[in-house]
Amino acid sequence: MSIVDIHTHVYPPSYMEILRSRTNVPYVRTFPPDPIPRLLVLPGEDGPTSTSTSRGRPIGPEYYSIEHKIAFMDAHEIDISVISLANPWLDIVEPSEAAQRACEINDEMNSMCLQYPGRLFMFGALPLKGTLEETVLEIKRLRGLSCVRGVVMGTGGLGNGLDDQKLDAVYAALQEEELTVFLHPHYGLPAEVYGPRAAEYGHVLPLALGFPLETTIGVSRMILSGVFDRHPTLSILLAHSGGTLPFLAGRLESCIAHDLHLAAGPVRRNIWDVLAKNILLDAVIYSSVGLKAAVAVAGADRVLFGTDHPFFPPMNPGGQGWLSVTMNYDAVSAAFGDSAEAKGILGGNAVKLLRLEL
Amino acid sequence: MSIVDIHTHVYPPSYMEILRSRTNVPYVRTFPPDPIPRLLVLPGEDGPTSTSTSRGRPIGPEYYSIEHKIAFMDAHEIDISVISLANPWLDIVEPSEAAQRACEINDEMNSMCLQYPGRLFMFGALPLKGTLEETVLEIKRLRGLSCVRGVVMGTGGLGNGLDDQKLDAVYAALQEEELTVFLHPHYGLPAEVYGPRAAEYGHVLPLALGFPLETTIGVSRMILSGVFDRHPTLSILLAHSGGTLPFLAGRLESCIAHDLHLAAGPVRRNIWDVLAKNILLDAVIYSSVGLKAAVAVAGADRVLFGTDHPFFPPMNPGGQGWLSVTMNYDAVSAAFGDSAEAKGILGGNAVKLLRLEL
Repeated sequence: MSIVDIHTHVYPPSYMEILRSRTNVPYVRTFPPDPIPRLLVLPGEDGPTSTSTSRGRPIGPEYYSIEHKIAFMDAHEIDISVISLANPWLDIVEPSEAAQRACEINDEMNSMCLQYPGRLFMFGALPLKGTLEETVLEIKRLRGLSCVRGVVMGTGGLGNGLDDQKLDAVYAALQEEELTVFLHPHYGLPAEVYGPRAAEYGHVLPLALGFPLETTIGVSRMILSGVFDRHPTLSILLAHSGGTLPFLAGRLESCIAHDLHLAAGPVRRNIWDVLAKNILLDAVIYSSVGLKAAVAVAGADRVLFGTDHPFFPPMNPGGQGWLSVTMNYDAVSAAFGDSAEAKGILGGNAVKLLRLEL
Repeated sequence: MSIVDIHTHVYPPSYMEILRSRTNVPYVRTFPPDPIPRLLVLPGEDGPTSTSTSRGRPIGPEYYSIEHKIAFMDAHEIDISVISLANPWLDIVEPSEAAQRACEINDEMNSMCLQYPGRLFMFGALPLKGTLEETVLEIKRLRGLSCVRGVVMGTGGLGNGLDDQKLDAVYAALQEEELTVFLHPHYGLPAEVYGPRAAEYGHVLPLALGFPLETTIGVSRMILSGVFDRHPTLSILLAHSGGTLPFLAGRLESCIAHDLHLAAGPVRRNIWDVLAKNILLDAVIYSSVGLKAAVAVAGADRVLFGTDHPFFPPMNPGGQGWLSVTMNYDAVSAAFGDSAEAKGILGGNAVKLLRLEL
């Protein structure tokens, strides 16, 4: 059996140049006397001090070197990785440059994959800041790149979220080209929801709660606006086991069933049906409780192991094993032992669903 | 066996008077020519038109008549209800009036319970807008009211959330008096997170997603600020099966374990330990998937059936059975059949944990 990591990020060298050239979030710079560069990527984490994780995180070549990715994979017995550009993707480029940047970065990442045949595949990035035509053209071009198996997207869409009717052309092209959308959070929730003491808790509240809720809101807006009715075979892979969708699916369905306003509108597909047919979930949930819920809603053959590398590195930088990885391995074992379901989650499902053969 | 509903709300007549006297949310009024009064309770739902559920919801005596509560219980085979003032509780009263209002409303609700001995118990409301001393005094007084088994609280605390160190006196008094805190959402998330099309989806996004996340953020701030370290036997009953806490507990624990800022601070109790010892969950989650996750983190002896009555009424007003109730009954059956665990969730746990004997 193969172990496949479908949630693993890269900032390829050309994207690192963009991050180093910027002076507001997201950006990369050093803060002397500390010689280690820091990545400030989350909204609001460019605080005035370095006494807190409120000023980003130290980064090294694990963020941009494909050799480091392979070494990480070897250390954790991962056979295949499906790499994706990390957030916030091409949301930060000028509209006039978006199409060209997407083309360059996607080609650069495809070349990285080709250095390790059979071990690396990728989700491409879309030039959503450009014109719709440019995005559709890039989708069709991506289908022809040998290592591309889908696209990575945030929840912003064209600026108005994923329930923007203008995105129908994008969804139609993705469905037509059979490219899976890896939906990933970045923007979280407005800082005020975490209260006046949030900085005391480092990154915990925005990352542990804001990210999953952003994903849940994003996909719920797709469901409510009928995206999966108009594009019945569109395939979406949700980061972090769907944010909170598996747990809240019942409440969401109940709220829809009890809403006088929606009752007067068109009939939509049931959420359980969308979950079973259109939605794939990663297994980046750090507990058997969450993993079992993910499998219960999506099916054991539609949940896919991931690591979120290079984020959540070990607290002792010399350490070999990454706790963030072993937590997710342990969740699979605790929930499914070494059953066929476990093997599917760890790799078989991804090989099949994402066509990871050469 | 008894069936117990621990999540069931009342606006007693004196509170209805407050709602009818107000002109901004929350308030109750009629909008001619429609003769049915409407309750506008959620932030932002006083929209200009009635073409959407954006203008509140129609209400009748099921919101304030204890006879209607008993009829609802009889229709759904509920033996005992633990009633609570509905949101936003006493968050809307003047600080100078808070203590007296709390006293009056709690006495009024206790009198309601006494009309149906053995069938009704209650969670009291706290005058948090008043002084800390007034709140602590009301907690001690509530312990002496014959039908009181805990208190209902929102996530606002004294205005700065539940991680406000000033609340320690309140938590200490609640622990001392062995009163369970029923933690319930009201404020949700800022409207902008739902995007420009939110009104098309009625109340779905704020209720299905905003409410649970508000609860999750609230209890997470309690955990991170050490409330359960300083008050190790404080008992909290979380609405809606913990919001999203059962599903996100692993991610929360992982984010804590990987946070450089928190690593430099004091050691806190593990989230799984808090979940198993301090946290009770209601079973208002509308699916067996969510219910199983709730039971997995809190234990089958610490999950308690509820209905959220009188919210989520049937769409056909003449209908007998409430779908929102049968969905939660069905979730218990689907997950646990008619096992001892199911009987505990449906009533036995509440009888034992909340001392529901006369």
